[in-house]
Amino acid sequence: MQENLNFFFEPQSVAVIGASSNPNKLSFGILKNLSQYGYKGNIYPINPKSDSILDHPCYANVEDVPGPVDLAVIILPAEAIPEVLVKCGQKGIKACIIISGGFKELGEIGKQRELELQEIVQRFGIRIIGPNCVGNINVYSGLNTTFIKGMPAKGGIGFVSQSGAVCGGVVDHIVNEGIGFSHLLSLGNEMDVTETDMIAYLAGDPYTNVIAAYVESIRDGARFLEVAGSVTKEKPIVLLKAGKSESGARAVSSHTGSLAGSQTAYSTAFKQAGVIEVSSLRSLLQTAMAFDFQPLPQNNQAVIFTNAGGPAALLSDSLDTHGLRLELINESVQQELKQNLNPAAQTMNPIDMLGGATEEEYGYAMKVVHEACDASSLLPVLVPQALVNPTAVAESIIQATSERKRTTLVCLVGKQSIGEAKKILHQSHIPVYDYPEDVGEVLGAMQQYRQYREEKNEIVTVERKERSSEAVTFFQQFHGKKQFGETELRPFLEMYGILNAAGKTANSKDEALEAAKRLGYPVVLKIISNEILHKSDAGGIRLNIRDDETLNIAYSELISTVQKNAPQATIQGVIVERMIEKGEEIIVGMKRDVNFGPLLMIGMGGIYVEAFKDVSFRIAPIEENEIRRMITETVAGKILAGLRGIQYDIEAVIEIVKAISQISIDFPEIKEIEINPLKVLPLGQGTIALDSRMIME
Amino acid sequence: MQENLNFFFEPQSVAVIGASSNPNKLSFGILKNLSQYGYKGNIYPINPKSDSILDHPCYANVEDVPGPVDLAVIILPAEAIPEVLVKCGQKGIKACIIISGGFKELGEIGKQRELELQEIVQRFGIRIIGPNCVGNINVYSGLNTTFIKGMPAKGGIGFVSQSGAVCGGVVDHIVNEGIGFSHLLSLGNEMDVTETDMIAYLAGDPYTNVIAAYVESIRDGARFLEVAGSVTKEKPIVLLKAGKSESGARAVSSHTGSLAGSQTAYSTAFKQAGVIEVSSLRSLLQTAMAFDFQPLPQNNQAVIFTNAGGPAALLSDSLDTHGLRLELINESVQQELKQNLNPAAQTMNPIDMLGGATEEEYGYAMKVVHEACDASSLLPVLVPQALVNPTAVAESIIQATSERKRTTLVCLVGKQSIGEAKKILHQSHIPVYDYPEDVGEVLGAMQQYRQYREEKNEIVTVERKERSSEAVTFFQQFHGKKQFGETELRPFLEMYGILNAAGKTANSKDEALEAAKRLGYPVVLKIISNEILHKSDAGGIRLNIRDDETLNIAYSELISTVQKNAPQATIQGVIVERMIEKGEEIIVGMKRDVNFGPLLMIGMGGIYVEAFKDVSFRIAPIEENEIRRMITETVAGKILAGLRGIQYDIEAVIEIVKAISQISIDFPEIKEIEINPLKVLPLGQGTIALDSRMIME
Repeated sequence: MQENLNFFFEPQSVAVIGASSNPNKLSFGILKNLSQYGYKGNIYPINPKSDSILDHPCYANVEDVPGPVDLAVIILPAEAIPEVLVKCGQKGIKACIIISGGFKELGEIGKQRELELQEIVQRFGIRIIGPNCVGNINVYSGLNTTFIKGMPAKGGIGFVSQSGAVCGGVVDHIVNEGIGFSHLLSLGNEMDVTETDMIAYLAGDPYTNVIAAYVESIRDGARFLEVAGSVTKEKPIVLLKAGKSESGARAVSSHTGSLAGSQTAYSTAFKQAGVIEVSSLRSLLQTAMAFDFQPLPQNNQAVIFTNAGGPAALLSDSLDTHGLRLELINESVQQELKQNLNPAAQTMNPIDMLGGATEEEYGYAMKVVHEACDASSLLPVLVPQALVNPTAVAESIIQATSERKRTTLVCLVGKQSIGEAKKILHQSHIPVYDYPEDVGEVLGAMQQYRQYREEKNEIVTVERKERSSEAVTFFQQFHGKKQFGETELRPFLEMYGILNAAGKTANSKDEALEAAKRLGYPVVLKIISNEILHKSDAGGIRLNIRDDETLNIAYSELISTVQKNAPQATIQGVIVERMIEKGEEIIVGMKRDVNFGPLLMIGMGGIYVEAFKDVSFRIAPIEENEIRRMITETVAGKILAGLRGIQYDIEAVIEIVKAISQISIDFPEIKEIEINPLKVLPLGQGTIALDSRMIME
Repeated sequence: MQENLNFFFEPQSVAVIGASSNPNKLSFGILKNLSQYGYKGNIYPINPKSDSILDHPCYANVEDVPGPVDLAVIILPAEAIPEVLVKCGQKGIKACIIISGGFKELGEIGKQRELELQEIVQRFGIRIIGPNCVGNINVYSGLNTTFIKGMPAKGGIGFVSQSGAVCGGVVDHIVNEGIGFSHLLSLGNEMDVTETDMIAYLAGDPYTNVIAAYVESIRDGARFLEVAGSVTKEKPIVLLKAGKSESGARAVSSHTGSLAGSQTAYSTAFKQAGVIEVSSLRSLLQTAMAFDFQPLPQNNQAVIFTNAGGPAALLSDSLDTHGLRLELINESVQQELKQNLNPAAQTMNPIDMLGGATEEEYGYAMKVVHEACDASSLLPVLVPQALVNPTAVAESIIQATSERKRTTLVCLVGKQSIGEAKKILHQSHIPVYDYPEDVGEVLGAMQQYRQYREEKNEIVTVERKERSSEAVTFFQQFHGKKQFGETELRPFLEMYGILNAAGKTANSKDEALEAAKRLGYPVVLKIISNEILHKSDAGGIRLNIRDDETLNIAYSELISTVQKNAPQATIQGVIVERMIEKGEEIIVGMKRDVNFGPLLMIGMGGIYVEAFKDVSFRIAPIEENEIRRMITETVAGKILAGLRGIQYDIEAVIEIVKAISQISIDFPEIKEIEINPLKVLPLGQGTIALDSRMIME
């Protein structure tokens, strides 16, 4: 998939097809950008009406260019592009960036146009970025195929965006701020090259230290998981996902279906692949800058150096929110600090050197801490004061951290007075933040990434097993059925080792009494009806029936309640089941996501699953450690682990999750399946499925 | 309390006691600031060693000043201040700002110094701001008693801070940004004038449209609630609370005690008083700016105008997160929009006019929407593009919104190219945000405040009732007891109309069997022991015992389990209680907060209260509507209201909350009290307390 991508980033020659001589046209802007930032390759404007533009001789057709062309940037009306693309193919061009819009984003007519292009592209083996994009920038070579105003500084952030405007906005934000990029590229309609291709490319780019991405959708979820999961072993990926507001009404669905929306699938995939998901464009830039400039923190402890209590308090709060803590500085180190600081200074952490703190004091405190403390993050905070020179403090910080063994993030609370200090800190690759809260957020992201790396998550692949003859027979028997209730599902679940509560089907009160006698009291009665997916909602469950007399009454009440609550439902009978009293009720389910495949869910079970949303997700298949982490993330998992004294059989739960995972891989036609409640018994006693449902594609 | 405060803000004359002639001293900086921003009153430097500073004649003592002095700004070593303060008193000065540190913030020695000042202050009736502060600025009169560099523009934000550094940082951030202030003041140690005094003062200040506050602690919680609750009926208060990270380990406590930390009390108080609590300094400024510049939104609908899809998608997400929605634009309005926009423009909301959108297109689209749509918020978004002039677009937005009937917040995604546009928008009181996500957050805060205003919350006062003779006897009987279990509490709760499950105390198995016979099976057994606060944790509860035989076994098991789990506990007997099967279990509790008084809690009950944290808080007393809202905020409340078909007796729950509230007012010596579980029966059937505990001060 990665073939020919180099031509986009390291072309020896670029043709701009449709370059205009009119400075008010975007296509002129592209040629200008391509010419003005030091790009060393050949530049060929293609324009039949001009002789030369910006001192580059023009050619009427791309075929007329004398030498080879590595990359074509096309900015022409949509209708004209197929013909031009054919010419590119004939010329042997292997990479084209189509800036023009007028394709898929317009609806049906545009989709047709894209299909037409697709055919040409395949014929000639051309790779395409776009259409409907703003091109790309290779900051190191000076290649700039965009019409964006301004050029980022050289740095280690590789920026990928599904929105051209976001690229433009980002450049406008960072130009002159000392934040540096390696590559910046917009992907447009992603007719060929996708965000995943670009992530893979940037992973191999030696100038790129961190990949930052703005994403609206990912089409090949499985490939993204694989590629991103492998990239994050080496390089961090920070990602902003737009389009989170899901519009709502959902058809009848399992609990899992209703909680496992597509945004959940995205967030789960990002987490599982070790991608740091941020919630704002600002945070995307701020986090990427820290990953680019600084080493990862080696522990979750930090020391704050400040000349003001208030901002340090805000930073402490922010560290706490993001799972970091302030190192307790021991008495002897505090004594050492006191020797050269203001006698009224606070030498606890935060180290508050008071309003008049000088550059010497910052330098001294940082040196002492560097030598004596464990904290891997050093966080100087400075509020501009009348008698303090922020630039001198910045220099002092640079000197104190020159060995770059710890993660250093600086907060300069202000704007007017801190410009020069910020500039020299950024030049020394020490990131500066304007507000204390930002530092905690960014450091939290770095810490999260470090933890992920240490967990050594493996992307597992599980083969689809050959379907057993039993399973084949099972699905043949129910051919065309869309919704399965527990009565039908029981034998299927049991093929995968999932035990159900001992039970019998009864079609009359006498049969129910007979069944209860065989099973032994107490028992449960549950309605059987194709039309009822959630039995409790329809009043179709009676628990804890302890004798014949109660069963007599309960049976009649059950039937009449269901008839009242769900008059349209055909009652096919009643399940009589042995009542399981001990144990905790959880839910284990799977919903197949269109992008990412089987989304597994586990959490607190029962009838309030959706109310409490105490659930955790993973995309199948996952290894056992990951199932264990998934369980731990929920309150239900904490209860199973013994939160209130009793330990439950977590190992048995893991087996159930594995079974559901295997089912979802073996049967791609299953859309949703869930066991709720799954009764988890005390340690060593296993689990029992009390109810289940399944929905087919 | 508000007497003489005017002297701080509108003095006719100011003495600077300790003004230095050395430009490197902060006290010189104060005199300079006081002189350079147009302040029209008399300025008297007090310095025995100089003749004049900055052309102001010096006086050796404040008593030597020829005319009256309204305000003294004192910047002298802490030891020297008592003597000077006496002189101020003798001179008849009614307001002093003590800039100097060296007081309470230093510990015991400093506290003593403050007490000494306190005595002088009371003798002369002087009001004090500080000590350990950076003074204040009245932007409109040019009075500036700080040494902060820079002067904010004139505007409607009144800024109060318990950190001087935060004031300095804020000024450094907003100078030259076109954000305007009315007053800015730092409070230091708050030896006299507090944040609440200042909020009350600014509420009456005609130049102040919104009060912004940075707060580390509030000492008089009840007064804050009253003052802030009354101010927010007229003017918004936006507040940032620092010091949220509570350090950990907590002594044995009720569930309520463990969840109702002091930060919860703060947040509850802010919410109840209609104060908008923000989570960052950046958000404090951004939100205050919107409240100052724009009218409140009248509904929760918005329309986005954009030249780029990506940033509009991010803004849509952010609106959704903050409870706002995009108006559905009807077909005829869409047709009208299409007439003068790019044919490929999206006329749904967001209205995406594409990359080339001109100022005329922005103006046209906003005019059409203004005339035809209901949305009270108009949100233009602009990404700088090569061929677009942001300043012209800004002018177009200003013109389109000149009637100021809707809330207009602008997002200019960038920095480099948007300076001039931002400036003129701010001059026209249209706030500009650099990132799309900020707009949703700010508009959400405005919307939240509007809702609060519409709910017309009343601060209620409830009188402490005279203690009944029964209650007096009750407490006499348990004189000195710190922890009450349910056995002791039952009669007390019943005095306040709280019913407990029918039950009897038993001291032997035979007594338990006898009790069960009288109550009727099924029954519950519960351990009685002074040392056991949470019975479930100790294995001290057995539910659902249905016959003599089971009771026999359960009784023995109960005793032996408790002896094993809590070997130190003395078992005083067992309660035999009628088992209540139907109903939902909730918790109702109260913890007395040191700042704000009785903090009421309600939520999901049972043994997992702390695991799920499905709880809601209010500070007592509250009116019935507020209790209703409190219940609605929890999942438990939604279940009671009929989430899963059955409606429970919410009216009876309200009575229980009222009773607990009344108890907490009648008995200030109660530190914590809770009923958990409180069984709520179906509609009209009331509630039954199944367990309870109480902790005394």
